[in-house]
Amino acid sequence: MSFDEAKNAIHQKIKPEPLGEEEVPLLEAHNRVLTQDVTSSLDIPPFNRSTVDGYAVKAEDTYGAEENTPAKLKVCGTVNVGEPPHISLAKGEAAEIVTGAPIPEGADACVMIENTEKLGDVLLVYRAVTKSENVMKKGSDIKKGETVLKAGTVLGSSEIGVLAALGYAKAKVFKVPVVAVLSTGGEVTEPGKKLPPGKIYDINAYSLSAAVLEAGGKPVCMGVVPDDKAQLRRALEYALASADMVVTSGGVSVGPHDLMPQTVGSLGEPGLIVCGIAVKPGKPTTVALVGRKTVFSMPGHPTSALLLFQLLVRPLIQGFAGRPVTGTSVVKAVAGARMFSAKGRRTFVMVKLNREKSGRLVAEPVETGASGAITTLAKADGFIEVPENEQFIDAGEEVAVLLLKSA
Amino acid sequence: MSFDEAKNAIHQKIKPEPLGEEEVPLLEAHNRVLTQDVTSSLDIPPFNRSTVDGYAVKAEDTYGAEENTPAKLKVCGTVNVGEPPHISLAKGEAAEIVTGAPIPEGADACVMIENTEKLGDVLLVYRAVTKSENVMKKGSDIKKGETVLKAGTVLGSSEIGVLAALGYAKAKVFKVPVVAVLSTGGEVTEPGKKLPPGKIYDINAYSLSAAVLEAGGKPVCMGVVPDDKAQLRRALEYALASADMVVTSGGVSVGPHDLMPQTVGSLGEPGLIVCGIAVKPGKPTTVALVGRKTVFSMPGHPTSALLLFQLLVRPLIQGFAGRPVTGTSVVKAVAGARMFSAKGRRTFVMVKLNREKSGRLVAEPVETGASGAITTLAKADGFIEVPENEQFIDAGEEVAVLLLKSA
Repeated sequence: MSFDEAKNAIHQKIKPEPLGEEEVPLLEAHNRVLTQDVTSSLDIPPFNRSTVDGYAVKAEDTYGAEENTPAKLKVCGTVNVGEPPHISLAKGEAAEIVTGAPIPEGADACVMIENTEKLGDVLLVYRAVTKSENVMKKGSDIKKGETVLKAGTVLGSSEIGVLAALGYAKAKVFKVPVVAVLSTGGEVTEPGKKLPPGKIYDINAYSLSAAVLEAGGKPVCMGVVPDDKAQLRRALEYALASADMVVTSGGVSVGPHDLMPQTVGSLGEPGLIVCGIAVKPGKPTTVALVGRKTVFSMPGHPTSALLLFQLLVRPLIQGFAGRPVTGTSVVKAVAGARMFSAKGRRTFVMVKLNREKSGRLVAEPVETGASGAITTLAKADGFIEVPENEQFIDAGEEVAVLLLKSA
Repeated sequence: MSFDEAKNAIHQKIKPEPLGEEEVPLLEAHNRVLTQDVTSSLDIPPFNRSTVDGYAVKAEDTYGAEENTPAKLKVCGTVNVGEPPHISLAKGEAAEIVTGAPIPEGADACVMIENTEKLGDVLLVYRAVTKSENVMKKGSDIKKGETVLKAGTVLGSSEIGVLAALGYAKAKVFKVPVVAVLSTGGEVTEPGKKLPPGKIYDINAYSLSAAVLEAGGKPVCMGVVPDDKAQLRRALEYALASADMVVTSGGVSVGPHDLMPQTVGSLGEPGLIVCGIAVKPGKPTTVALVGRKTVFSMPGHPTSALLLFQLLVRPLIQGFAGRPVTGTSVVKAVAGARMFSAKGRRTFVMVKLNREKSGRLVAEPVETGASGAITTLAKADGFIEVPENEQFIDAGEEVAVLLLKSA
């Protein structure tokens, strides 16, 4: 199956639709995705507010006021901020007011304190104001019923502020897809313990769990499952029951202990939908569907596993999370060496990006293969795609580098 | 004080150095920052491994083997994956082996199963192998003592994988700076409750807490503190005692209830270091230092508060977190209208980015000011800086837009 056929098979069988909604406290909604349009249930501001420190007045009482011919008004009281005004202005009256306080009944403008002088309860106004001057009208920022945020918005600091402004202490957001991640292979063992002879430390359960986080999912890191058919089956059944998706690694080749394809294929209908892909690296990648849940079985090689995850799994997790499906970020660079495609297979060449003094960004291939399992992970910034029908990309050609480091 | 003077005052008085280190479980270290270089305490792989399914052999026993003249070897046993080999090869012997299993003593190469035929305990080898062929040598990926990750690295999925490979179940990372966030103002009240008459909902405690998250800090959202000198002082003392930095908003103008500057200035030495900045918006911004802890007092207007946070606070939080200080991201665009600077003040114009059909990115000013508190937050993508010494930026000029949405 070619890479495009595999992508099509996945695309046809698995709809990357959001998994549901939940309501969470406002700050926990940060970086989550709104499930519905948010409409204001109130006018903002909810009342006419003063935008200055000074006096609320009837504008017409100030008409003609100038430095030499001030208007004379009677101070009839004070309006406090944060309280409904308990006074009402009659003709010729003014009320002390501060920024943000509600305009009292009878007033229709505010005079800045700098343009006044108070003598006992007499106020001299040295500058006329027009109707509504220094007043922020009710609903002038947002009208009741107005749609302020759209469904599908990823909530950043501004949007969290908008929701608070509308009075929301919670937000309805899409559920975060839960992704179980497990490693198989008789040779892998948990980090943090002494390394038994003949073993190597498990990488993939950790790197793939972290990649799930970066894609907007919640990983359940199940660690290493022993290379035993019954135990693997039990672990997969548990993973399917407790998560929305399962990502495994290892055990997908054809060796005697590579139980993965037959085991995941027998877990339920419709079963295997992709069984090997004509790509390099990552050829043995297997995808099975059990009911509506997907099991992605990646190769054991850490870089291949992470690469195929970015290509195939990340967009699905984003879709399940209700996020815009961005795939991987891309930068343009110049190939630092000739890069060959494997005969008849879509080839992905891991590269490190170097910025030359001239400012040119150069993509240098990083050794992968058997002996570069960890050094490749440590060094590679991304990868370059070489199409099946091209023999190579030549040194100096402009290339698109798909970035592995999305954090 | 000009904007540059304010930045210099902050830069001279506050060293944005990491606050300390802690050890966290590996997956929790995702998107955190390494405090020290990580050196491998083991060779990887820790033993010579087979890279194929087949037979471990002495290479010289296969020399000359071809399709018509196979080498004949005696199968002396099996090497399992994940276990130390219990056998040792004598001349003329071969041992069954799978990918990843350790090469047994006496063997120095592996033959792929495809190139063999087994008849009882006799193995026919149809293709010669050279010494070390199909063997991944001990330490060939990483040598014991090699530095694999550098201090200051932000841990993404690849780096988490590298740490697992080296056997680490925990990582030493910089502490996350704790930032207390509180709002003041008699007119603001907590979202989630019925809006009392004369009040508006608090925005800044939420938007600034979310901005702290985006900068790599841990917000402690203290909500609204009443506009009372004693209560404000108690709240600030509590905030200083429980957090590494404090960000307040509101109460920094000159009105009768604007207690913030005098209160934060009296909390301890050295006290106020910035008291008003010649910027628009954000003029009343105040910065005080109490011992080694900083109190940033932002204006009450939500967009101004968020803007000044991005300009002044975000780089400090990044520094305290041991992160690269990136400030805000920048995109190039074309000014969609003439934008004026406020006389003698560094002016920041909030803009929305629109991509025209031609592909041109246009920065359209968004109305701010008194009546645009929430609509500005909802609409603005970023801001443009207009220098003090320029009257305006003209429509059509190329401008740098500093992005507000960093999530």
